[in-house]
Amino acid sequence: MASLSLRIDLGPHRIGPGKIELLERIDAAGSISAAGRAMSMSYRRAWELVEEMNGLFAGPLVSARTGGRQGGGTALTPLGHAVVASYRAIEQAATAATRQQLAELEAELAPLPTAAE
Amino acid sequence: MASLSLRIDLGPHRIGPGKIELLERIDAAGSISAAGRAMSMSYRRAWELVEEMNGLFAGPLVSARTGGRQGGGTALTPLGHAVVASYRAIEQAATAATRQQLAELEAELAPLPTAAE
Repeated sequence: MASLSLRIDLGPHRIGPGKIELLERIDAAGSISAAGRAMSMSYRRAWELVEEMNGLFAGPLVSARTGGRQGGGTALTPLGHAVVASYRAIEQAATAATRQQLAELEAELAPLPTAAE
Repeated sequence: MASLSLRIDLGPHRIGPGKIELLERIDAAGSISAAGRAMSMSYRRAWELVEEMNGLFAGPLVSARTGGRQGGGTALTPLGHAVVASYRAIEQAATAATRQQLAELEAELAPLPTAAE
């Protein structure tokens, strides 16, 4: 039951589960507004997060894709894909390295209330 | 520069850097109000967090200490010390396991602006 949730502090900025999920949803939906909506986030808020991430790294993570048969859209750049993959790999390595300690901490939790009949 | 900040999800609750720092400051100051103040937290908020943590684990993490020459005070219980130590050990293990990946992610960041003269 115990699991890790990771923020990576990068100077004055940080990336964490919310921003990474937003990037993954943009990748899946091809749209910032659809990705934000799926996370109950305003379009403005989703855009702000994308702008913040685009400014934080050496190049943009999300780019507008113009033209083509679908008349444009939005996609992750190669750097965007690399950052998502890097975060997920860090999450996996941290979880694997602490599995035993997390189980020990979990053993200190109060017993769960039994389900009401 | 890149560093991890860990939340541990424990069912509907989580513990993270803020709650752990609060426990450490209670241990150092012997007082919930002084610990909260040092973190710019209201007494009420500090108490709420302590109550939440006391209810989450098999026993309290913080206990009122009555009597004695100093006329009472507040201290971490042995379980409180164990939870703090466990969190710090998990943080250390996760950081050690991801050091190389964090450095690689950091290499993708935008160059820092040069210092103003």
